[in-house]
Amino acid sequence: MQRFALIGAGFIGSVHAQSLAAHPAVDFRLVYDVDSARAEALATAHGARAARSLAEAFDPELVDAVFIASSTDTHAENLRRAADAGLAVLVEKPIDLDLAHAAETVAHVERAGVPAMVDFNRRFDRDHAELKRLVDEGAVGEVALVQLTSRGPALPPLDYLRVSGGQMRDQTVHFFDLARWITGLEPVEVHVAGSALADPRVAEIGDVDTSAATLKLAGGALVQIDSVRHTGYGYDERIEVLGSTGMAESGRMRAGGVTRFRGTEAVSDGLHAGWFERVQPTYAAALGAFVSALETGAPVPVGLRDGLRAQAIAEAATRSLASGRSEPVDALV
Amino acid sequence: MQRFALIGAGFIGSVHAQSLAAHPAVDFRLVYDVDSARAEALATAHGARAARSLAEAFDPELVDAVFIASSTDTHAENLRRAADAGLAVLVEKPIDLDLAHAAETVAHVERAGVPAMVDFNRRFDRDHAELKRLVDEGAVGEVALVQLTSRGPALPPLDYLRVSGGQMRDQTVHFFDLARWITGLEPVEVHVAGSALADPRVAEIGDVDTSAATLKLAGGALVQIDSVRHTGYGYDERIEVLGSTGMAESGRMRAGGVTRFRGTEAVSDGLHAGWFERVQPTYAAALGAFVSALETGAPVPVGLRDGLRAQAIAEAATRSLASGRSEPVDALV
Amino acid sequence: MQRFALIGAGFIGSVHAQSLAAHPAVDFRLVYDVDSARAEALATAHGARAARSLAEAFDPELVDAVFIASSTDTHAENLRRAADAGLAVLVEKPIDLDLAHAAETVAHVERAGVPAMVDFNRRFDRDHAELKRLVDEGAVGEVALVQLTSRGPALPPLDYLRVSGGQMRDQTVHFFDLARWITGLEPVEVHVAGSALADPRVAEIGDVDTSAATLKLAGGALVQIDSVRHTGYGYDERIEVLGSTGMAESGRMRAGGVTRFRGTEAVSDGLHAGWFERVQPTYAAALGAFVSALETGAPVPVGLRDGLRAQAIAEAATRSLASGRSEPVDALV
Amino acid sequence: MQRFALIGAGFIGSVHAQSLAAHPAVDFRLVYDVDSARAEALATAHGARAARSLAEAFDPELVDAVFIASSTDTHAENLRRAADAGLAVLVEKPIDLDLAHAAETVAHVERAGVPAMVDFNRRFDRDHAELKRLVDEGAVGEVALVQLTSRGPALPPLDYLRVSGGQMRDQTVHFFDLARWITGLEPVEVHVAGSALADPRVAEIGDVDTSAATLKLAGGALVQIDSVRHTGYGYDERIEVLGSTGMAESGRMRAGGVTRFRGTEAVSDGLHAGWFERVQPTYAAALGAFVSALETGAPVPVGLRDGLRAQAIAEAATRSLASGRSEPVDALV
Repeated sequence: MQRFALIGAGFIGSVHAQSLAAHPAVDFRLVYDVDSARAEALATAHGARAARSLAEAFDPELVDAVFIASSTDTHAENLRRAADAGLAVLVEKPIDLDLAHAAETVAHVERAGVPAMVDFNRRFDRDHAELKRLVDEGAVGEVALVQLTSRGPALPPLDYLRVSGGQMRDQTVHFFDLARWITGLEPVEVHVAGSALADPRVAEIGDVDTSAATLKLAGGALVQIDSVRHTGYGYDERIEVLGSTGMAESGRMRAGGVTRFRGTEAVSDGLHAGWFERVQPTYAAALGAFVSALETGAPVPVGLRDGLRAQAIAEAATRSLASGRSEPVDALV
Repeated sequence: MQRFALIGAGFIGSVHAQSLAAHPAVDFRLVYDVDSARAEALATAHGARAARSLAEAFDPELVDAVFIASSTDTHAENLRRAADAGLAVLVEKPIDLDLAHAAETVAHVERAGVPAMVDFNRRFDRDHAELKRLVDEGAVGEVALVQLTSRGPALPPLDYLRVSGGQMRDQTVHFFDLARWITGLEPVEVHVAGSALADPRVAEIGDVDTSAATLKLAGGALVQIDSVRHTGYGYDERIEVLGSTGMAESGRMRAGGVTRFRGTEAVSDGLHAGWFERVQPTYAAALGAFVSALETGAPVPVGLRDGLRAQAIAEAATRSLASGRSEPVDALV
Repeated sequence: MQRFALIGAGFIGSVHAQSLAAHPAVDFRLVYDVDSARAEALATAHGARAARSLAEAFDPELVDAVFIASSTDTHAENLRRAADAGLAVLVEKPIDLDLAHAAETVAHVERAGVPAMVDFNRRFDRDHAELKRLVDEGAVGEVALVQLTSRGPALPPLDYLRVSGGQMRDQTVHFFDLARWITGLEPVEVHVAGSALADPRVAEIGDVDTSAATLKLAGGALVQIDSVRHTGYGYDERIEVLGSTGMAESGRMRAGGVTRFRGTEAVSDGLHAGWFERVQPTYAAALGAFVSALETGAPVPVGLRDGLRAQAIAEAATRSLASGRSEPVDALV
Repeated sequence: MQRFALIGAGFIGSVHAQSLAAHPAVDFRLVYDVDSARAEALATAHGARAARSLAEAFDPELVDAVFIASSTDTHAENLRRAADAGLAVLVEKPIDLDLAHAAETVAHVERAGVPAMVDFNRRFDRDHAELKRLVDEGAVGEVALVQLTSRGPALPPLDYLRVSGGQMRDQTVHFFDLARWITGLEPVEVHVAGSALADPRVAEIGDVDTSAATLKLAGGALVQIDSVRHTGYGYDERIEVLGSTGMAESGRMRAGGVTRFRGTEAVSDGLHAGWFERVQPTYAAALGAFVSALETGAPVPVGLRDGLRAQAIAEAATRSLASGRSEPVDALV
């Protein structure tokens, strides 16, 4: 049994609380939040208790691992705390919005030698993982072209967007990670074209809501990623990998399997209304993989370095949006 | 080159005229119709000429083969003429609405030894033929259950229905043939339940427009066929074969590949508006197979006996509609 | 909060235990099983306790409702106990394999006036329920033809089949219920053709493993149901409803959304390996609907009479298998 | 009736000859080719005759229109000849590989005032045209993102690639045209990343075989086009248009509708083996639209200016491949 503390009791914290409570090999002990009432409520609902202080949540006498789901600006500090306490740690992305600071943090955690994983939950999507397995077993030959689609139904609040770091760092970063993971190849350069089409105020805060990123991977394979903040048809996520001998895809997921035929049309259930309905099962799967690594002593399936690499691509992508040309991806982090 | 006469210049005759004119190994010579103006017009449109008499259309000095697409009540007589003249013959189903008379006709033609084929054109559908190939190569193991769907968009005119012989003999007979052909097994008994739902006048003329037929094949495998005269969504035809190790299907065919997503729905192109759009390519393919058999001396791909067998099933099916019980299929024709 | 006792701690009991434990408005109190160790283990795993006796599980001081998931031969007796104790009751089908005895039991429970529901869980499948909603709102017009497919991957053990009551009563009965529910129409007569194709020993025990049932509903609409005990391709369940103005279907459900294209083929994820993967979410949904009815005082969504009606169809279907003719469905139960 | 001469009797010329011969309002008169035997053979096969000289093919006494399907380097000269003779003209793309020369040619033809159309046949694909219709009627709202896929199964011969002008001018140009046509918007700038992955010799001749183009349209909408010269799974072409209120696509087209299910897999018919099978019906449709414009006096549906515009995008795209940055599209042609 792994004793866990959860840091952060907001929306995503409550999602993780449910996974922690349901996992048979997890002893869900403590919840900490800057809002102690919120911590209390979440802890009670899942048979844990609220930590009396942040320090208590990192007490190795009480817990073996911490799940960091607090606000982005506290990730790095909480990672250091966990490392210093010798605790295993699972952290929401990003490590830190500042890449250099993120890199220092990772170096610190690595020196401590604790198991540390970034929660790139989409890697644990059943279909994406099956696609990765097919690519690994050679089902498409040498990878030549990857296409990823990332489209959310509704623009997040502008207040959120203002502190999000921009579309590349906030949204597309998940797909930079998927591209690296599925191909096993590092991007060399990236070009992004973007526009603010859903709401002109997005442009005012210097961001885009519709973008097309192109990555060139080592060896020449290409990656296309389209990122959209606002669709009129729900949440659309898919991946396609073309190789030298074939193609494989993790397709668009429908919300149901009902179709009606009338006249010259067939009307079917469309896509999931929101991202959460689509990716929900991945959270428990990611936690399960982390716990399994702790139990067996195997390496965690997504290292902090993976978080840094995806972030470095997002940095280059953000630069490209401004410069209008392909930007090299920092290979040193 | 095979010199052809076409008997019958109605709708289906004009379809066959087009195939005859387009086939590179066919010399399309003559068209005969009781309405000589109609024959003239069709012949002219395709570079043939109208026969001066029915006799001329069966003159072995002028033609090698006749395609019988005249009215149902003349099929048998025209088959005998072709046989007596030593001509190869391709005939629209049925051979004759009276099974005994049809059987005598077939015996007569067989004694003459001419190549003679029933135009069960659906056997030449690309997808159905591929399904047959898969079943033959063992892709589903031993056949256990076959499902066929036969649904037309609109009730034919009552005047047509009155002389059609009823839904089993007119519509379902094609699917009785497909069931035999795909499985390679003969039906032992058949049960049909039917209703007149599209138009109460169908019941008044003793027919049904919606029916569910169940065949038991030699060895115990089952066949389900639904036949519908009126859908609100176009023409729907498909076949599914379940066997001991898997299942294969020739699926519902869409009229196009466009889909639009909006809100919670996906709206796609529906089915073909009518049966003709769906089965059109099969006519040329059936003719091609007949001509190819003539050119190579191989047996024709669908014999007159196949027509009789399908008709015998339709007879038993018609009896079952009246008796409410499973009826044996006459094995002797 | 509704206090529940669960009767039966076998496989299906353990499925229901999970739903009971997870439901926010259920206080899962007691588990009873003839094997007290099994009851103990299941209770402990879900925060309930094992009942000291069968009587205790029906004690209205301790519980408000019982969930009967014990062996089939005890359903009727346990229903009576619940009714006599004034407890709400949710029971696995069938009420009793003997239809007359089942009818007496239902009459007894009705006199007691307690809320009582048969767990026809498939009615709570998301897609089937959406299909029902579409039919109810007139999306297909007047129902003319319904097709249901019920195909399991592997023949159950012969020891199970021997006491199952036969394919109609054990397997097809769920689809008899779905047909009634979706159309809102009662079957007047039923015809079934069946064979033992998967294993000859099925014939030796007087049962079939592959069958084609045809129901005629009041008003003339038809229903086709194919029931198969052994496929080579997983679990296949679907429903199609054709009406006077269109058609709607709850389609075949795939286990995943990955496809690979190579050469001339596209290879996709197939169906679910087993029935449980396919229908799992329906158990919690059915329980939820029962609890919701208890909380609001609304009628339960599936009454015991629904269980009797489906069983009466199964009886007629079983007679038809023997007689080879359409059998009337008893309208009096 | 429109009297036609066909210039060019190679592969694509023979495709057009078939369309010309089959069109009811076309009187197919003459075929010219530098290889007179080839012209003779093609003419004979379709009831036309070989022109005695190139001049004869442009003789307004003999023909009303010419179809230019000769080698690329002769297009411009033949266009001028047609214009000077006052003949209507349908020309294979490109007008000339040199954009400035192409522009001069167009200006010359425009001064002559003859109907002149570029054969961008993909605009006449049934599904693409339906997609265009949906976008025009507002089914997706304001266009935000367009994705086009252009993937051929096999690398053309290097000898062909050497004179093709490169992937942008030879292959992607069709999709530049489709993007303009469907959106009704002009591209402002274009970025392309490309690699030679299918064959290293492609790099040696300064070309790419795998590329990702991104266009920014006036107003900010984005277009992604992937162009691939070699797939392991046939010919793949599709278009997707995302707008402010929804999305619509002209989907991947399958070569057939057969699926077999076995174990955990479903194996379906894949894509068309080659581009020709996929686009074949578009040739006759394009010719039909041209002839219809001639008969009714309406403007031709694709003007020479459309050819120039697509070519200007291809020029900018080719520059971007070299510069690694977004290149402006020349707005003046």
